Amino acid sequence: MICEILSVGTELLMGQIANTDAQFLARRLSMLGITMHRQTTVGDNPGRVKEALREALSRADLVITTGGLGPTEDDLTKEMVAETFGLPMEVHGESLERIRAFFTSIGREMAANNAKQAMIPRGARVMPNRKGTAPGCIIEAGGKIVAILPGPPFELIDMYEQQLEPYLLSLSDSVIASRFLHIVGVGESEVETRLLDLFHSDSPTLALYCNPGEVTARLTVMCRRDEDPAPLLDPVDREIRRRMGSAVYAEGIDVSLPKEIVRRLAERGETLAVAESLTGGMLASQIVDVPGASRVFLEGCVSYATEVKRRALGVPQAVLDADGPVSEACARAMAEGALRISGASWALATTGLAGPGGGTPETPVGTVFVALAGSNMETRVKRFQLRSDRPRVRAMSCLYALNLLRLRLDEMET
Amino acid sequence: MICEILSVGTELLMGQIANTDAQFLARRLSMLGITMHRQTTVGDNPGRVKEALREALSRADLVITTGGLGPTEDDLTKEMVAETFGLPMEVHGESLERIRAFFTSIGREMAANNAKQAMIPRGARVMPNRKGTAPGCIIEAGGKIVAILPGPPFELIDMYEQQLEPYLLSLSDSVIASRFLHIVGVGESEVETRLLDLFHSDSPTLALYCNPGEVTARLTVMCRRDEDPAPLLDPVDREIRRRMGSAVYAEGIDVSLPKEIVRRLAERGETLAVAESLTGGMLASQIVDVPGASRVFLEGCVSYATEVKRRALGVPQAVLDADGPVSEACARAMAEGALRISGASWALATTGLAGPGGGTPETPVGTVFVALAGSNMETRVKRFQLRSDRPRVRAMSCLYALNLLRLRLDEMET
Repeated sequence: MICEILSVGTELLMGQIANTDAQFLARRLSMLGITMHRQTTVGDNPGRVKEALREALSRADLVITTGGLGPTEDDLTKEMVAETFGLPMEVHGESLERIRAFFTSIGREMAANNAKQAMIPRGARVMPNRKGTAPGCIIEAGGKIVAILPGPPFELIDMYEQQLEPYLLSLSDSVIASRFLHIVGVGESEVETRLLDLFHSDSPTLALYCNPGEVTARLTVMCRRDEDPAPLLDPVDREIRRRMGSAVYAEGIDVSLPKEIVRRLAERGETLAVAESLTGGMLASQIVDVPGASRVFLEGCVSYATEVKRRALGVPQAVLDADGPVSEACARAMAEGALRISGASWALATTGLAGPGGGTPETPVGTVFVALAGSNMETRVKRFQLRSDRPRVRAMSCLYALNLLRLRLDEMET
Repeated sequence: MICEILSVGTELLMGQIANTDAQFLARRLSMLGITMHRQTTVGDNPGRVKEALREALSRADLVITTGGLGPTEDDLTKEMVAETFGLPMEVHGESLERIRAFFTSIGREMAANNAKQAMIPRGARVMPNRKGTAPGCIIEAGGKIVAILPGPPFELIDMYEQQLEPYLLSLSDSVIASRFLHIVGVGESEVETRLLDLFHSDSPTLALYCNPGEVTARLTVMCRRDEDPAPLLDPVDREIRRRMGSAVYAEGIDVSLPKEIVRRLAERGETLAVAESLTGGMLASQIVDVPGASRVFLEGCVSYATEVKRRALGVPQAVLDADGPVSEACARAMAEGALRISGASWALATTGLAGPGGGTPETPVGTVFVALAGSNMETRVKRFQLRSDRPRVRAMSCLYALNLLRLRLDEMET
């Protein structure tokens, strides 16, 4: 099945927001084995929406629109789809009731223009909006499918996961089964080199998705709905793990290293503290971003000024004088200080030079030290030399710090 | 001038990355008064790149491509543009030398396929790449302009700012002058309501750009290159400030509240510490993300566990027992503790409930307290009730905390 995404919204054409809806849909559709050939963005302009829709329908079997479902006159995606298929718009009673109930729940009267959001092309399958007021819908006509989704990301994601994805899965008797292996600490080109011959297989197919410091390998097979895909996926899965070794840190879809750390520490009944210099709170923030982080995360010290490393974490003045704040010895003392002060089971520390200024020949911009301290172990410190801009150097430093702890947990659990 | 963006990259169609290049370009082009009607994304497929390019050229005066300039066989944007205009590809000697010098500088031999990156359509104006290996170029043919930019964001941004934008500005004798007023702490619909009649003016035109908790008002006039736009912009500027009052926090393009705070504190020779609960390091991280933050930022305490609020910040046990960790009294004590311990000129604190779980009737999810303490003032605390998801509640809390300090600095400076 060939799919296109049609994003509607002047705010996208003006660059006010990034099109994360298109990214979310593209990623999820590719997991279903649906092929994407094109994504188009147009503004809230009736003629251009219709033109882009007609073009997309001439090339694709499935067109997913995002945005343009709001209450104002500008919002006209549903109306343009209806016109294209020659369908009249009708009030959808249940949606109207939901919208009215929503306004009642927040103690406000429903405005007249919100009633427009309950209008649906005749014959469409309605997708109720559990996170907002505008329902989505699916229209099957002329051998094509158009799915209409709202623009706000948390409305779109919920509607896709709860309603559109199950619908798309129901269309086919074969299903796509995927498995995701998450790899950290090995660069993209190195992963590619080690797995090169595996890319030539037709089943399972292998693809890599890359983020700074992290690579996800996706294995995909097509099988019958009632077939167990595991025996088809297992041999290549084992082969990847054999070649990548401990760099594979998890399997699954909605996985990240902070989530893994929170999950595993919670299972072990253990706690974590962090001490940060160049990451400046980003490491703590990534952990706190995981719902339920309070079960394992105790505290963070953003010891940005050198003096704070001494006073708040107990880094010896001798270390600061002789080795400096960007050094193995300082990272070690920061982690050990955070462990001692917090009473946590584990402490992670980061120090380094994110740039753009401040580099020296011995300690160039991009020099990063991450450290792990724990109660029954010698403190571990790793040095990295990262080549990137300030935000990315900081993000990769967080990942590498978390990976130190992950590797230690792996050791203890095998 | 009508413009379209053509993004080339299978990684975009697969959703591996968000198309932040398109967002950056859209925002910057709209500042120049260049009208964008459509953005298209296609994969690394020669036929589909050419088809999308031809279509874009049939509608627009200017097409900007992003991506597909890498060294591999898949990377074919330049080649497809050259074919479309019937231009041969030629080696660009200077670019070849730059690429070779780049590899020498990192101690590696240039691979043969990197030479492909120095091939340019005949007659194109080359834009050297100061951040990577692939040069961009500009082709003027058949009354149309195609600008070819690399995909990696930091290469693209540098090339746009240093080379493409000056070129685009040189095309016209009239220029667009814009002024941006940044507004914080007032919702989008409230800003819209207060400024409603100003949207009807043709010169200057007024547009709003919105982010969670923040609105940017853009005033734009068209004028002659040698004309001072200030007298055209000033009256509406003054009117907006009159109506929005202290919610206007800054003017300029590359402005954010963390940057403003760092800049203003540096000017005043003052320092800042933060104590964070629900924001969990995000506030510190936003400040540290500003280059040069070390001049003003001393330290942060991520007092996530309740016990840490007492031990690390000195929040009285009585406050924690009677008022609880999500309370005005706790926010106040956190800010005052951070001020005392750090010796900073100012301390900000955040506490609240980001959700999804943990709400009560008195303290529902989305309850946030932010506090500001300073040496010669009574500590200020503000309560907010935010309706959004966990990441957004945390982001808005950071903004509102910074705004407390900004308002205080405004008072002192007037």
